Amino acid sequence: MQQITLATYILTRLKELNTNHVFGIPGDYVLPFFDEILDGNHGVKHIMPRNELNGTYAADGYSKMNGFGAMVVTFGVGSLSCTNAIAGAYADDTPIMVIAGTAAVEVLTTPTERRYHHVIENNFDTNIEMFKHITCASQRLVDLSTATFDVDQILRKAMQTKKPVYLEVPYDLQNAMVDAPTRPLDLMLEQSSAVNLNAALEASVALLEKSKTRSVLTGHLLQRENMIPQGMQLVDQLNAAVATTFSCKMGDFEAHPNSIGIYMGEVSEDYTKEMMDGADVAIALGVTFNEFDTGVFTTRLGQQQDVIWVRKDYVEINGERYDMVYLRDFVPALLGAIRHIDAGELTLQARRMFAFEQKDRFTATDNELTIDRLFIQFSNYLQAGDMLYGDTGGFINASQAEFPADIVMHGCGNWGSLGAGFGMFVGANFANEQHHRRSVSIQGEGAFTMSAQDLATLIEHKKDLALFILDNSGYGAERAIHPGKERSYNDIAVWKYEKLAEALGGTEGVDVHSYVAHTEKDIDAIFKALKEPEGVNIVRVMLDPNDSATFNLRFSQLLQH
Amino acid sequence: MQQITLATYILTRLKELNTNHVFGIPGDYVLPFFDEILDGNHGVKHIMPRNELNGTYAADGYSKMNGFGAMVVTFGVGSLSCTNAIAGAYADDTPIMVIAGTAAVEVLTTPTERRYHHVIENNFDTNIEMFKHITCASQRLVDLSTATFDVDQILRKAMQTKKPVYLEVPYDLQNAMVDAPTRPLDLMLEQSSAVNLNAALEASVALLEKSKTRSVLTGHLLQRENMIPQGMQLVDQLNAAVATTFSCKMGDFEAHPNSIGIYMGEVSEDYTKEMMDGADVAIALGVTFNEFDTGVFTTRLGQQQDVIWVRKDYVEINGERYDMVYLRDFVPALLGAIRHIDAGELTLQARRMFAFEQKDRFTATDNELTIDRLFIQFSNYLQAGDMLYGDTGGFINASQAEFPADIVMHGCGNWGSLGAGFGMFVGANFANEQHHRRSVSIQGEGAFTMSAQDLATLIEHKKDLALFILDNSGYGAERAIHPGKERSYNDIAVWKYEKLAEALGGTEGVDVHSYVAHTEKDIDAIFKALKEPEGVNIVRVMLDPNDSATFNLRFSQLLQH
Repeated sequence: MQQITLATYILTRLKELNTNHVFGIPGDYVLPFFDEILDGNHGVKHIMPRNELNGTYAADGYSKMNGFGAMVVTFGVGSLSCTNAIAGAYADDTPIMVIAGTAAVEVLTTPTERRYHHVIENNFDTNIEMFKHITCASQRLVDLSTATFDVDQILRKAMQTKKPVYLEVPYDLQNAMVDAPTRPLDLMLEQSSAVNLNAALEASVALLEKSKTRSVLTGHLLQRENMIPQGMQLVDQLNAAVATTFSCKMGDFEAHPNSIGIYMGEVSEDYTKEMMDGADVAIALGVTFNEFDTGVFTTRLGQQQDVIWVRKDYVEINGERYDMVYLRDFVPALLGAIRHIDAGELTLQARRMFAFEQKDRFTATDNELTIDRLFIQFSNYLQAGDMLYGDTGGFINASQAEFPADIVMHGCGNWGSLGAGFGMFVGANFANEQHHRRSVSIQGEGAFTMSAQDLATLIEHKKDLALFILDNSGYGAERAIHPGKERSYNDIAVWKYEKLAEALGGTEGVDVHSYVAHTEKDIDAIFKALKEPEGVNIVRVMLDPNDSATFNLRFSQLLQH
Repeated sequence: MQQITLATYILTRLKELNTNHVFGIPGDYVLPFFDEILDGNHGVKHIMPRNELNGTYAADGYSKMNGFGAMVVTFGVGSLSCTNAIAGAYADDTPIMVIAGTAAVEVLTTPTERRYHHVIENNFDTNIEMFKHITCASQRLVDLSTATFDVDQILRKAMQTKKPVYLEVPYDLQNAMVDAPTRPLDLMLEQSSAVNLNAALEASVALLEKSKTRSVLTGHLLQRENMIPQGMQLVDQLNAAVATTFSCKMGDFEAHPNSIGIYMGEVSEDYTKEMMDGADVAIALGVTFNEFDTGVFTTRLGQQQDVIWVRKDYVEINGERYDMVYLRDFVPALLGAIRHIDAGELTLQARRMFAFEQKDRFTATDNELTIDRLFIQFSNYLQAGDMLYGDTGGFINASQAEFPADIVMHGCGNWGSLGAGFGMFVGANFANEQHHRRSVSIQGEGAFTMSAQDLATLIEHKKDLALFILDNSGYGAERAIHPGKERSYNDIAVWKYEKLAEALGGTEGVDVHSYVAHTEKDIDAIFKALKEPEGVNIVRVMLDPNDSATFNLRFSQLLQH
């Protein structure tokens, strides 16, 4: 049996999950693992982010493109800095792994009053216990004879649940020898109950047969399960009206002729609500009951209609629940079961006016930029196949741009952490080495500054991308949620974003290019110049601090506590 | 009874603890608290750091100067980002508080399948449970009638234990009305057991009476308890040799004629070891058994001598333990009890050659900088009363500079988090508004980049300071711990630190001033120019990636696992 180090074993499994890069910051407890990243025969490359939180965001953004991501740290100072991003991956169903190097097994297992560095009191389990609250599995490898089994198991859990995991590897085990895998990792995904699956299918078909109009709402789990094509097929077969959700807008559905836009309860346009809530049957595919996607819990799906909720691991039809029926099994089975059903009637009228639909009528002026009009221009800039990441202000507003086919906007989702979207974007640019998509990100500057140092990582690796920073001198989203006073705590001191790339290691005009846009004509020229961005392009978009998108005012009103 | 909001009540108590600034990043769950920071009558100002981790470091650095610090966040995304810094405050005994706004009481107490933003599943207790592992108290205010009692109690716990605390305040309670305090917070610090205290005194006096030579080792708890003067007095009364510890070097002791330098077991100079371990009695004041201060657990205090360990909350004399005897009670009592004892004999010879002691012989050359020689120059730059913060590379190396009186170097301590020292320095500059010390910081660039965006906070508030960034293109400390190969993972892409202040909002030559030093003469001129720094001065100090301090090589060898 071929022997490899435990670190190389782990990296080999990651590679099988399409994780071709690991993010990681070396610390003294994890250095043998880093040696193995460099020396081992596994095909995984190391990317160094500028801190552990950013690196975990990067792993998340990587996973959203490639299916899995990983961050390697030293425990204590490293692990704890990852917690916010790990919680975000949990909340928004993204499988990633934090690998943390710890003290050697003998140290871990010897009672002592010593106070080791990176350790609270003499308790080596602090990190594992904390991560249990924000992962589907949090554990340490301690027995070399079962270590590879444990690695496979924890990866399976992450892939099964689409949740993050936390794995500690003691110093002396990192380069200890184990048997190399003899076959690729079998994910052994849990199987749907055949009885329940068939019952759910039967109930669904019965409702659909008698229906004339149908609507489909598409949630982020459809993207996580890599099932957008099947979702599209369902829309086609049923001739259903289709809407995407806020936390994971998918351009395929928005570009579909049956698109009714973005649905989020009372935040939606009237037309979208009528079409979604008024169909005879509504089908929600991979939607969770989260605050943002539900427009602060104001959705009415199923209240005046039949409804089929296809959740990650169960289906619920008009209140009857079919457990152990997985999204990934149910949707293909449903496609097979409804072949005989006539395409429903669908009358699309007075469609919601997406920003992009005004493009033919849009003429850039010398006027200063406003958010509503900016996103018409941004819609026009987007093109099929773009990779798009947004952060808070950028994310919220970009949700009102309509996306061409094959664009998914990723970002902070329902967890809503400022700075997450940019960190994810950093990671996604490495995943993108195999996709070659045009790389675009749009950020509020309040979010961007939180993880800004990782602009350096993009510059270091000579990525080609366009990064738009919406500069309204503060936390615009918060101003909207809590209006009425001039509140200085939402103001951020002004940065000169156009000088940042140079300071972080780029050479302006060579590998980095910085722009400032004040007017519609400014940004129009920039969008044209960045049709195929080369190098790191950073665009500072000047906005009025008190400007807010029409949509966002409606959303923010509901978010007021 | 005068009524004030609960937020103002908390802020009033903070002000009583000399916390005149709170750091905070607004999030939607905590906006009423921020309104009260602006509007309430409490005298506390809001400072906005650029992210929550940096802000918690800042609160820690503030506490190390002023005795207490606080960071205000929204729960979930905000709270979890604070964890690493909170754990550091725990490990290094610094009382700070994270105040987190949560959903309203009714939301928190209503069972639901809703998925609120910033929340994992529907469990609102995630943060509190996680913080229990890294604080001395982690709780939520839920009952207005006991809220002020709870606030007082949690502050007492922090001050009693010198540990961080975590407090959640629901949205609707933040501006709910409570009775204003009628008298200042009574800390009700736990009292030493009179019996044990007297027994410990008696045993100590007996040892000291029969001793001829004494040594004193001073630990960080002496600084936390604000008892450096009493420590000095003890050294004087006993004519003891005195050494400081790595994680909290205190210039008062180093400037004392009896100084034998910095003691950390086998990492120490031979002379320091002989004087410390060879005295008839060694007294350790506020020293913890942590890895760095003990030179990776190689100290020999008490092995061939009598030893008096004065811990935070007990005294141990030659293995006999006296519980409930507090450092803050024991030291003054000991001073009283030894008045009759003769000053011991002390022969200081062939003193350890501190960097600073070579100053008269130091002539700056045109040679490129080396760390060993740089810190001779740095020692000469330091002057009595400076406020000094270091981060990792800067901290480790500055430990080998000898400090003039009244300087304490603060930084990442035994927790050892990269980026912590700079974050603390940011906070300390606000505490310094009442101390008016010259503000100096020295950082490895690997650490600095981790929290670099908060340079903007110092620029925004127009602080006067000198920040030295040691640029050796990577993690020098790690290269030393794990030598033998050229390991690319310890390299960091080059930033142009001299352009960073301008990008982060400063105006070069006006409120920010940037320098690059290659040679000894370069840095000599810069030190002279920065004798009284005005504005934010940032100095990029160019070093060879493979250069390492003589001392650090010794330390790093022991740290190899």
